[in-house]
Amino acid sequence: MRLTQTVQKGGCAAKIAATTLREILSHVKFPKAPSNLLVDASTFDDAAVYKVSEDQALVQTLDFFTPIVDTPQIFGRIAATNALSDVYAMGGTPLTAMGILAFPIATLDQSVCTQVLQGASDAISTARAAFVGGHSIDDDTLKFGLSVTGVVHPQKIWTNAGAQVGDVLILTKALGTGTLCAGLKRSAYTEDQIDEALESMMQLNDLILDLDETLQSAVHAATDVTGFGLSGHSLQMARASGVSFEIDFSSLPLFSKTLESLEKEHLTKAHRSNHLYTQGDAEWSSLKPLEQAVLHDPQTSGGLLLSVAPNFAPHILTKISTRFKRAQIIGKVILPSDKKLRFRI
Amino acid sequence: MRLTQTVQKGGCAAKIAATTLREILSHVKFPKAPSNLLVDASTFDDAAVYKVSEDQALVQTLDFFTPIVDTPQIFGRIAATNALSDVYAMGGTPLTAMGILAFPIATLDQSVCTQVLQGASDAISTARAAFVGGHSIDDDTLKFGLSVTGVVHPQKIWTNAGAQVGDVLILTKALGTGTLCAGLKRSAYTEDQIDEALESMMQLNDLILDLDETLQSAVHAATDVTGFGLSGHSLQMARASGVSFEIDFSSLPLFSKTLESLEKEHLTKAHRSNHLYTQGDAEWSSLKPLEQAVLHDPQTSGGLLLSVAPNFAPHILTKISTRFKRAQIIGKVILPSDKKLRFRI
Repeated sequence: MRLTQTVQKGGCAAKIAATTLREILSHVKFPKAPSNLLVDASTFDDAAVYKVSEDQALVQTLDFFTPIVDTPQIFGRIAATNALSDVYAMGGTPLTAMGILAFPIATLDQSVCTQVLQGASDAISTARAAFVGGHSIDDDTLKFGLSVTGVVHPQKIWTNAGAQVGDVLILTKALGTGTLCAGLKRSAYTEDQIDEALESMMQLNDLILDLDETLQSAVHAATDVTGFGLSGHSLQMARASGVSFEIDFSSLPLFSKTLESLEKEHLTKAHRSNHLYTQGDAEWSSLKPLEQAVLHDPQTSGGLLLSVAPNFAPHILTKISTRFKRAQIIGKVILPSDKKLRFRI
Repeated sequence: MRLTQTVQKGGCAAKIAATTLREILSHVKFPKAPSNLLVDASTFDDAAVYKVSEDQALVQTLDFFTPIVDTPQIFGRIAATNALSDVYAMGGTPLTAMGILAFPIATLDQSVCTQVLQGASDAISTARAAFVGGHSIDDDTLKFGLSVTGVVHPQKIWTNAGAQVGDVLILTKALGTGTLCAGLKRSAYTEDQIDEALESMMQLNDLILDLDETLQSAVHAATDVTGFGLSGHSLQMARASGVSFEIDFSSLPLFSKTLESLEKEHLTKAHRSNHLYTQGDAEWSSLKPLEQAVLHDPQTSGGLLLSVAPNFAPHILTKISTRFKRAQIIGKVILPSDKKLRFRI
């Protein structure tokens, strides 16, 4: 039994497209947000930050998806790591997690469920958070994820709105999980052949543990790169910050098989929707379609994109590189213009 | 387009059976729970309580399911109300909510999604909580629910483990949502014909607002009656409290069509699994199969089952009856014996 063969779409690639989501949400009459809500997840997709006292705010996020790998325990671990990531992306520390489980009781062995939960429990333990409960449903296809609550000091939140002109952009993990998992699903690759991507997706984005107070405050903005790809999440960050980004394609960290897999057209619906989402806001220079596909590749449990003060960037990179071996400086923040993203080759 | 016709199983009836869940969880090696975790959701189904300071604890719960009614806005409102209910069942007040949305983009109009979210937003507003974000996925069938975080004073938690011998049992809503929604799905009833059940499912279990400090502390235990039915949730509460319950069948509040609908065999898989789950632990006396089916009926957004100090019971009932018109005293807590539940007719 291979988990990826039990579903049509895998992982973050099964997200509803950003444009569709915006359209749907624009018709809902939400009440005025309370003043305690410091960061509103208005895209229905990021972590929210809710202030509970002068020195404490809750960071809340929720993420779940269908299997992107075949081994149940690895799937559970990746899904949990991916959900925990949003808390780290806000500069927070995870506190509690609840499981979101849709499981086909009639067609999958119960041991699969046990292993998925074991993988999740292991990731939550590594993050020093508590697995406090959850909800399960009998469904046609397996889906798993977490609702995570973390804490952050209200004055020390990393949002995606703080990037400043002159900042340096750092990406902490390699790109390509979308196409490699699509290749796995099509049996073009085995799990062993894409193990660097699996390892990457199982690594917690807990780089804040490697940064002292000074370096933490040198991080002006952060986001985690997931379903909307580097292009989509960069665009959201540039837009929220009122700046433009210049990204150097040649400096992007890629898995060894990322380009090969994209060339073989192991693509998902999200590759197209991310392209559509960002097309008008980017200057692609002479980037070939294959290279553009790298930018649109939907990541599952992708790295953090950090916008950091230029004088601290090398120091931050050194500090995190011990554990985040693929971390790279990938570009810089420039004055806002009609194009929010400018790619250089 | 009728939402209930787009799914096989509706509402809490689509839960994984309690016995299956216990079996699965028994094989997962969870780490030791931290001391801050005051109430562990060891059944993977109730709210957890996590202490963050001497005078504040987080109440966390998560619930989602497939459509049980046809009108999208009513579905969204019921699903949100049902999820918020667990916080009230712990004696807490909801603070934030995140949406859990699985939506079939290809087969359902986007306006359906908007209306589901509108219904949820309205319920969250009524509960004076903030809708702070969520996650959406493109899926074969519609599912919706919330992850809710509330607050409670660590010394004032209502758990399902505090019922004391001599306590009086109060149920705050009528029974029958499982069979009536099954009847709706089979087109035996229209929404208009079961409107008392729809209204009931849309009512927040916020009865704590009607109780002063004294009456709040007279509530020794509480749980909300959902997918495992009155039988299953009573059993869990009696077990957790180390007592037995004597429940008077004739005093149970039922919707006007509950018995008729059960007689017509508008049943779900949960009717059977709840029967199996409780069979050995209950003395059914001379209850007929039809009457037993009432007890096993899986509720969606059901009432709270309260175990209260006998001298305060009439006062509590009077206070909450203004808004919870079907609230009733349904039995009492007795000395523990081999049968955790004893039914009288």
